[in-house]
Amino acid sequence: MGGRVVQNIERADTDVVRRLGEAGVATVHEAQGRTGLMASTMRPIQQDLGIAGSAVTISAPPGDNWMIHVAIEQLQEGDVMVLGPTAPCDMGYFGDLLATSAMARGCRALVIDAGVRDTRDLRAMGFAVWSTAISAQGTVKETVGSVNVPIVCAGALVNPGDVIVADDDGVCVIPRTRAEAVMATVQKRLDAEGAKRERLASGELGLDIYEMRERLAGKGLTYE
Amino acid sequence: MGGRVVQNIERADTDVVRRLGEAGVATVHEAQGRTGLMASTMRPIQQDLGIAGSAVTISAPPGDNWMIHVAIEQLQEGDVMVLGPTAPCDMGYFGDLLATSAMARGCRALVIDAGVRDTRDLRAMGFAVWSTAISAQGTVKETVGSVNVPIVCAGALVNPGDVIVADDDGVCVIPRTRAEAVMATVQKRLDAEGAKRERLASGELGLDIYEMRERLAGKGLTYE
Amino acid sequence: MGGRVVQNIERADTDVVRRLGEAGVATVHEAQGRTGLMASTMRPIQQDLGIAGSAVTISAPPGDNWMIHVAIEQLQEGDVMVLGPTAPCDMGYFGDLLATSAMARGCRALVIDAGVRDTRDLRAMGFAVWSTAISAQGTVKETVGSVNVPIVCAGALVNPGDVIVADDDGVCVIPRTRAEAVMATVQKRLDAEGAKRERLASGELGLDIYEMRERLAGKGLTYE
Amino acid sequence: MGGRVVQNIERADTDVVRRLGEAGVATVHEAQGRTGLMASTMRPIQQDLGIAGSAVTISAPPGDNWMIHVAIEQLQEGDVMVLGPTAPCDMGYFGDLLATSAMARGCRALVIDAGVRDTRDLRAMGFAVWSTAISAQGTVKETVGSVNVPIVCAGALVNPGDVIVADDDGVCVIPRTRAEAVMATVQKRLDAEGAKRERLASGELGLDIYEMRERLAGKGLTYE
Amino acid sequence: MGGRVVQNIERADTDVVRRLGEAGVATVHEAQGRTGLMASTMRPIQQDLGIAGSAVTISAPPGDNWMIHVAIEQLQEGDVMVLGPTAPCDMGYFGDLLATSAMARGCRALVIDAGVRDTRDLRAMGFAVWSTAISAQGTVKETVGSVNVPIVCAGALVNPGDVIVADDDGVCVIPRTRAEAVMATVQKRLDAEGAKRERLASGELGLDIYEMRERLAGKGLTYE
Amino acid sequence: MGGRVVQNIERADTDVVRRLGEAGVATVHEAQGRTGLMASTMRPIQQDLGIAGSAVTISAPPGDNWMIHVAIEQLQEGDVMVLGPTAPCDMGYFGDLLATSAMARGCRALVIDAGVRDTRDLRAMGFAVWSTAISAQGTVKETVGSVNVPIVCAGALVNPGDVIVADDDGVCVIPRTRAEAVMATVQKRLDAEGAKRERLASGELGLDIYEMRERLAGKGLTYE
Repeated sequence: MGGRVVQNIERADTDVVRRLGEAGVATVHEAQGRTGLMASTMRPIQQDLGIAGSAVTISAPPGDNWMIHVAIEQLQEGDVMVLGPTAPCDMGYFGDLLATSAMARGCRALVIDAGVRDTRDLRAMGFAVWSTAISAQGTVKETVGSVNVPIVCAGALVNPGDVIVADDDGVCVIPRTRAEAVMATVQKRLDAEGAKRERLASGELGLDIYEMRERLAGKGLTYE
Repeated sequence: MGGRVVQNIERADTDVVRRLGEAGVATVHEAQGRTGLMASTMRPIQQDLGIAGSAVTISAPPGDNWMIHVAIEQLQEGDVMVLGPTAPCDMGYFGDLLATSAMARGCRALVIDAGVRDTRDLRAMGFAVWSTAISAQGTVKETVGSVNVPIVCAGALVNPGDVIVADDDGVCVIPRTRAEAVMATVQKRLDAEGAKRERLASGELGLDIYEMRERLAGKGLTYE
Repeated sequence: MGGRVVQNIERADTDVVRRLGEAGVATVHEAQGRTGLMASTMRPIQQDLGIAGSAVTISAPPGDNWMIHVAIEQLQEGDVMVLGPTAPCDMGYFGDLLATSAMARGCRALVIDAGVRDTRDLRAMGFAVWSTAISAQGTVKETVGSVNVPIVCAGALVNPGDVIVADDDGVCVIPRTRAEAVMATVQKRLDAEGAKRERLASGELGLDIYEMRERLAGKGLTYE
Repeated sequence: MGGRVVQNIERADTDVVRRLGEAGVATVHEAQGRTGLMASTMRPIQQDLGIAGSAVTISAPPGDNWMIHVAIEQLQEGDVMVLGPTAPCDMGYFGDLLATSAMARGCRALVIDAGVRDTRDLRAMGFAVWSTAISAQGTVKETVGSVNVPIVCAGALVNPGDVIVADDDGVCVIPRTRAEAVMATVQKRLDAEGAKRERLASGELGLDIYEMRERLAGKGLTYE
Repeated sequence: MGGRVVQNIERADTDVVRRLGEAGVATVHEAQGRTGLMASTMRPIQQDLGIAGSAVTISAPPGDNWMIHVAIEQLQEGDVMVLGPTAPCDMGYFGDLLATSAMARGCRALVIDAGVRDTRDLRAMGFAVWSTAISAQGTVKETVGSVNVPIVCAGALVNPGDVIVADDDGVCVIPRTRAEAVMATVQKRLDAEGAKRERLASGELGLDIYEMRERLAGKGLTYE
Repeated sequence: MGGRVVQNIERADTDVVRRLGEAGVATVHEAQGRTGLMASTMRPIQQDLGIAGSAVTISAPPGDNWMIHVAIEQLQEGDVMVLGPTAPCDMGYFGDLLATSAMARGCRALVIDAGVRDTRDLRAMGFAVWSTAISAQGTVKETVGSVNVPIVCAGALVNPGDVIVADDDGVCVIPRTRAEAVMATVQKRLDAEGAKRERLASGELGLDIYEMRERLAGKGLTYE
């Protein structure tokens, strides 16, 4: 029962990817109808960093990191490796040696629904990681999985080439074919937010800006 | 089934609030008989920061942040918003726009038994947050709740105007009417601690300072 | 039913301890056959710090920190206190006063399967801590336990004098009598890693360095 | 810093209590505006049993069950003991001996945000329990707490004399003074449900009974 | 941003579905290469029951059960409703009224990565449920989602018409197009197991039946 | 780096084992000074069953159940297999085939800090299990571990031949060499409990039986 490696995947436009990354997870997630967010157990090992890139997906058995070596050969500049184990696992699939190799291929980050190790080194190297665990526990290389097939990672479906946006708030997946449309919606939100932020900063109330008072009274809110 | 907004609440003396904040959560909690501590799932999004303020309480439905807009109008300089959802929820009720608005009204911090988002921005803005989750998942504005009513937040009862002390160790609630008395006890502990710290730093043992040896032997402790 | 304090314990060679610490948890754990790792719930309160030392063990009742005072008298330069409660407990056993006392005796760190408090102060003092909780909740001094007896801490057996290595990846226990042998294996791994890191950094693939291609094909991996 | 025992508390009408119990947690919680529900970590140790009674509240230190003895003297026929520890604790506060004593005083059930033990015996005795843990770990009797004061239990505020309704879905608290009004609302829901159940059982759709089709289309739902 | 309802989905052969159900989750999961298993947080509300059916999928917002009404119209005899919320949620989406309606349409079970309520009634009605929570907390009907689109449920990808096998060990998803092939593999395993069970029951050892002794010795296992 | 199998282990007196089992976990744990209790995450897959036996210990890699086959050869009538993985793992190590084999060798139960599967079959066969997870996820047979060496299981140290007592309250380990002494203490507790239960059942209060009133008043408890 062998695995598969899909070698030629399509990726989203690099400019769209960059702009989605600048907008950040909360805005992008909102803009695409509140879908694609990974579980909040997916946490960064570094602080105050946001990235975006194209997903190279990895389906790996629990406790077996062999397919990461296979995936690294498929990486292009600006890619993000996304690993979903075929069963829950918090072992440390990834450390500084694999990061060295991935960075040499242009990889921007790892998103993994499992553990990583050498976290201090990874931060020092500037290799970004979002994971659901930190663990020194090593893995084996005994069973094949697949690369660039659809996977589930921390509750989100990821297809190869999808856009991954990740920051301190978590990780969001934007389907490749929708990336441009989502970015258009994102831009509208960003434009609107600027003006609102200014008014709120001056002390004006959301109650007035968003004209909420009447609707609140209609729902029965009373003041004492 | 409408909600209520109580508009004129009493607050504790600002000097007492400040001094409770300087003492920190561990000392204050100890001084008031080990009561009022929120669950240890309540964690700061920033590090090495301690605050204290008067509670403006928010009772909100799960996944609905409408009442935060209502609460912001009730804020005074030095207040801390405290939100307890009526059912467990880890969605992101609060982000940088609401923080902008709250800061414009003098709000010092948010304590929320739910999620927040835009955490990088919140740290950059200097708006302090303690929450039980970080999540980009947005909320709706459909159902009213109440402001400045008694709430339960992360296992602690909070009445409007109670003093909230929060730092890296967690969050503690001091009933408004007991604030001064608790601060008096806190001061005694602080005075006593200084002398003890010096003796301990010089290598003297707690076993001797606190005269524990006899009591330990009486309980059957033996040395080999 | 009194407790026991074992006063003269053997420790590993200080140079071996230092070198194990420099190698770090992931490497050491791997080198000793993937044993001795504490659960991944054991987390540091500081970032980017690694330590190693000899274990002074503490078996304490839940919610009772009396034995820490007893243990401090047994500390020598370079020791690490390791506390396992006799039942699960997340209360704050340890704060800045005890740290002051422990540091005065040469103690390097605390590893505790329970909570600590005053974490900001502990970081400021440079006292390293790995714990399974942070909580301001204080403990009592009513029941005796034991010092320097075998304990279980976060799932790992710790004998007094064992070597403790701790960093951002977690905490690993190396039996005292095996420390030198483990360090020899560690050294071999470190020597091998240097060369590999260089080849990987230059873009060479693990698939080629480790000669994996044939074995992967044998397991049925196919490329599309 | 002594505790308090409030001896004469008011209770709700026994018939109202009984009827609330028959309605069950889901219906009662819905009827009182979705408030008062304890966290879903509060689970029964028996299956397919529902009860209701008047709360005798216990505020107890973590790992100390002394106040249960004090509370038992305050019990009346039909009461439910509700214990909230002043800090999180999963130790076994309660077993078959205390249950024997409580049953002799007419107590109907225990609701405890902590652990219980002797669960097999408790089931055999017919003493109902909802708890957040099962643990054989015993507690001490060293520190006083309070009986019949307001407490927080599993996230819900409980005042002495409040009505407790508990079944397989969890535990709900109905403020004593609102019990009758809530029961009136409950009755309306029950009356309405009977008719609906019959229509649904016959195959009629909720889409039609609740006239949802137009509103769904208005929100943009499309059929393919 | 409206949702979609796909009305005509293909289902697997009913006889294959039935046989997969009889084989049970552990065997089926093993036979399809250890894929498709939902997280172990997915637990049954009843004991000692196994089922199988065709998935009618529901993508629903957190805390909003409106789409269950929409999905019920799409049910056929032998279907299993599978609901994945677009964000984590433990509220009670489903109770006895909806079960009455679903059963009237031939529905066999509900699999939901969220909460259910009225669990005692559901057991009494014989409606099978696997859920990740039990909670009396009700949901609203404000936002549309989709029915019979691909969803992620408890970490597993589910397409409409996929075969769902569920029992005390959890829930497994078998892609509709692979159902027959998986069943063939399952049958081979079942045939082989019968003979092995007999030999093991007679006291023969797995070490001998599976000829493990030599391989164990080769890996360095020693007897003392 | 091979594993070890220790073949001739000592066991406690069978009569003492039986009597410890009849006393149950809560009583035995209390009697041996509140030590040896496994974490409360260790739960039975059956209800209302208590057992006791001699530990055959298994140290196994995460996700690898090979050593269970090796351990079964070492089983004697009345033994309990106790498995602690060398890293946290919730995969299903054990199912009905292994249970068939273990029962044929006289094994009474399995205690495992990991997952099991085929739980319905195991209950039907009358093979008792305490585990920290239920999962259909299978394991591999690639790496050797050890049998009858000291292990840590769910936080408790277990030496081969130790007495295991398990029931609905959890699992407790009694060191083999202390079994008889612990049983003597247990017997005293049981004798004392009988009389107390009778007095409590007649309505007499613990406050009076244990003469607590004076001590409570001395600690400051007041009645209102």
